[in-house]
Amino acid sequence: MFKTVEWRGDAVRLIEQGKLPMDEEYTEFTTYEQVASAIKRMVVRGAPAIGVTAAMGAALAAKNIETSNRDAFFREFETALKTLESTRPTAVNLFWAIQRMRDCAMENSDLPLESLKDKLVAEAVAVYEEDLVINKTMGENGASLLDDGDTVLTHCNAGALATAGGYGTALGVIKAAHLEGKKISVFADETRPWLQGARLTAWELMKEGIPVTLISDNMAGHCMKTGKITKIVVGADRIAANGDTANKIGTYTLAVLAKRHNIPFYVTAPLSTIDFELESGDLIPIEERDTAEVTHIMGVHQIAPDGVGVFNPAFDVTPNDLISGVITERGVAYPPLPQSMKKLKDSG
Amino acid sequence: MFKTVEWRGDAVRLIEQGKLPMDEEYTEFTTYEQVASAIKRMVVRGAPAIGVTAAMGAALAAKNIETSNRDAFFREFETALKTLESTRPTAVNLFWAIQRMRDCAMENSDLPLESLKDKLVAEAVAVYEEDLVINKTMGENGASLLDDGDTVLTHCNAGALATAGGYGTALGVIKAAHLEGKKISVFADETRPWLQGARLTAWELMKEGIPVTLISDNMAGHCMKTGKITKIVVGADRIAANGDTANKIGTYTLAVLAKRHNIPFYVTAPLSTIDFELESGDLIPIEERDTAEVTHIMGVHQIAPDGVGVFNPAFDVTPNDLISGVITERGVAYPPLPQSMKKLKDSG
Repeated sequence: MFKTVEWRGDAVRLIEQGKLPMDEEYTEFTTYEQVASAIKRMVVRGAPAIGVTAAMGAALAAKNIETSNRDAFFREFETALKTLESTRPTAVNLFWAIQRMRDCAMENSDLPLESLKDKLVAEAVAVYEEDLVINKTMGENGASLLDDGDTVLTHCNAGALATAGGYGTALGVIKAAHLEGKKISVFADETRPWLQGARLTAWELMKEGIPVTLISDNMAGHCMKTGKITKIVVGADRIAANGDTANKIGTYTLAVLAKRHNIPFYVTAPLSTIDFELESGDLIPIEERDTAEVTHIMGVHQIAPDGVGVFNPAFDVTPNDLISGVITERGVAYPPLPQSMKKLKDSG
Repeated sequence: MFKTVEWRGDAVRLIEQGKLPMDEEYTEFTTYEQVASAIKRMVVRGAPAIGVTAAMGAALAAKNIETSNRDAFFREFETALKTLESTRPTAVNLFWAIQRMRDCAMENSDLPLESLKDKLVAEAVAVYEEDLVINKTMGENGASLLDDGDTVLTHCNAGALATAGGYGTALGVIKAAHLEGKKISVFADETRPWLQGARLTAWELMKEGIPVTLISDNMAGHCMKTGKITKIVVGADRIAANGDTANKIGTYTLAVLAKRHNIPFYVTAPLSTIDFELESGDLIPIEERDTAEVTHIMGVHQIAPDGVGVFNPAFDVTPNDLISGVITERGVAYPPLPQSMKKLKDSG
């Protein structure tokens, strides 16, 4: 089985997601600058996977700092954290993971520097291992929402490739239902411009032996209208305190279509994806990415005239009233989401 | 300026739409079998352009029949018509144009065969020339629906490349408003899988000097939600008598989104696109095309795992209650569409 992200002692090893499914290649990144660049270039993507990778990047930064001067160490470490934080603006897990590394450094600031570095490495590995467990629990919590015979539409990739590995968020729910013996089939939106659905979700589900049908994003409405879809399950990059959910561009459209067709629409995300500081989805910063993602397929195959204007938002926000439930590692939050999500948080 | 389709006396010349915008190439087709294959392979596409090309293919068939036996001529001619009719199932202009050629042959069945052939060539050229005039009139009829400052979202290509040439249907409305001096800008859905928006609409509008912003299909919802779109204008492949409209896959989704955001949604099509024989949109046959269109970009660049399941419907049906108006060469039909469209038909 592939490994999305792995701590190698002196490096972070990532599967090259831009090359899947044609090539299954791994690259080791040995400096935090390389890790930051890998996140920015989407060698790794998916909110939880970005969080785990950033934590490992921070651990790598700490290990590589050569000074024995404590103040200089903390200055250099903070520079590294800031660099990692600046890679992508929308997914909140990035900021959550980096803050966790910052807190760990603060809490252990009295230790000898070598011990502190060990603590930071252990913390990054803990972020990784917790993500694996959380995914498993989320999957089990969500599986009961899927029925034998369901055809589930999903968008982008919210699988093992979007998390520390193994299970995934939205795909974790599907995998758990599949493992329970329910007959589940999946429709996967190809998810332009980066084609996470065509390249990653289809590949991952085929490896699991779960039947998958690939469609272009613009076919989802027709599929719902003609009765082909019974449930929708997606991941999330950031959920505001009121339940408004930022996720891969196109998610909002699916939610609007689901409402029209009375199809349940579920979001699956760990509690670390919920930004309880943020009142509503309007406040979530939406990353705009390079125009070449739209004009060239995977940076290679040109499909639009030279010089055409392009708008390329990477995410959109689905308002809470279109969401049937948020599946987390502490259970499913049902509307009204502001109250039910808060209750899950406080139950920890 | 480019020419979409042209009668060359002994051939039909088509611009190779699969090669645009990177290459502007023309091919001459000298037999009706070649023309039928070109329609099937989407060398030419767009409901009105398919109609014109098929009429020319029928004229070519008549010219190439060598027998002097009248019965044999009509048998061979009918075989050609049937072949041309079997190329694509959804766009009704194909059947309308072929029926017109069949009627022309019947009405002139007493003429010497050489004169009959001349009549059929003249009829095909008339179909072409009428389309040019109709587009111009449609554009003028629709232009009054667009206001100075509008940003119009369009889907697929309903321009000069989708018709005999020159003006187009949906893009004809935009061009006419632009020529009237209104400041109009356009958002173009790229329109997977065949990318008519990215490859054809963007190219055509840039040639006209009309500002165009290219987006992936799944970005349309976000653009509407954030106030970037003020009107939607699309073409049609077949409109049922009740106003339900088959158009390029993804159109239905735009209409659902438009409804949520109170954005006017207009369909532009000549009366030949309205199938008054068909009660409702459920009865329109929806073509499913080759899976490779989804798994490979333009038949070349693979983006999905080998062997993945694919669903590739080329069209969807937008119910009449989501349509703000149908712009035709005899004026704009407003809801209730069954009555208003019939009135336009009877006014001829």
